[in-house]
Amino acid sequence: MRFFEDIQIGQRREIGSHTFTAEAIKTFAAKFDPQRFHLDEEEGRKSLFGGLAASGWHVGSACMRLLIEDGRRLTQEAVARGDKLAVWGPSPGFRDLRWIRPVLSGDTVSFVSVIVDKRTSGSRPGWGILQATTTGTNQRGEEVYSITATAFVPMREAGG
Amino acid sequence: MRFFEDIQIGQRREIGSHTFTAEAIKTFAAKFDPQRFHLDEEEGRKSLFGGLAASGWHVGSACMRLLIEDGRRLTQEAVARGDKLAVWGPSPGFRDLRWIRPVLSGDTVSFVSVIVDKRTSGSRPGWGILQATTTGTNQRGEEVYSITATAFVPMREAGG
Repeated sequence: MRFFEDIQIGQRREIGSHTFTAEAIKTFAAKFDPQRFHLDEEEGRKSLFGGLAASGWHVGSACMRLLIEDGRRLTQEAVARGDKLAVWGPSPGFRDLRWIRPVLSGDTVSFVSVIVDKRTSGSRPGWGILQATTTGTNQRGEEVYSITATAFVPMREAGG
Repeated sequence: MRFFEDIQIGQRREIGSHTFTAEAIKTFAAKFDPQRFHLDEEEGRKSLFGGLAASGWHVGSACMRLLIEDGRRLTQEAVARGDKLAVWGPSPGFRDLRWIRPVLSGDTVSFVSVIVDKRTSGSRPGWGILQATTTGTNQRGEEVYSITATAFVPMREAGG
């Protein structure tokens, strides 16, 4: 992972895409969000969503998976270049999560992350705070999901 | 579910509790958040979390499950009283999600929801907009999780 100084506002990265199958939608919903429009095609069609719809938590979790995998790719690329690696802190949470449109069975959602803010931390010397917005867009080019996350990122000089 | 007029700011409801087992933490993480401190006890102990820690998405999803089950209980109670039922709209998202402290294997988190705001919708006549904050507290009385969600709720008079 990169250091605070190496990250610029506006930087954009394609994180990957995920196809939501009916089976995966129902499996997630049965465990964590057992509402009828997440569990049954016919109930989904009769609902406001117009089809079997993935739980918003399923969409967020699938996005998390892609973010982790992308982080691994970034790390491998950095190792391959011989770069020094930054160890990011844990995320304290996020804000402005939006489920903009339903994600229906068979939809493929592509996720892109953009750095929207960076500032030095007042409480943790040697650390910066990033804000990144990750947006999910379906195969018809419609935005379906957006989340703005905060991360603590170490500064290069403090890293020794 | 209740109508907009029947809901008061400050209303508080215990949603239920959930114990996060090591097995469930690892199963969720393997699928959606494969970071070492979510997958392995020893790696968890060596991390900032100090133990095998549940993914934040696992905590949020488990809370969602309890909210759905609590919604069913509310509905059943209303039916038993012979009340007219309100059909809530879908949630457009949430804000201010915070993972305040780690949730470690064996922790039991109890969730409570409080209505923090209500207003009439400008764009959807006959509907109101609620804000509810749901907080998770572990068995030591420490807050671990907080989320503020928005919901569209129909008004009684518009309901016919």
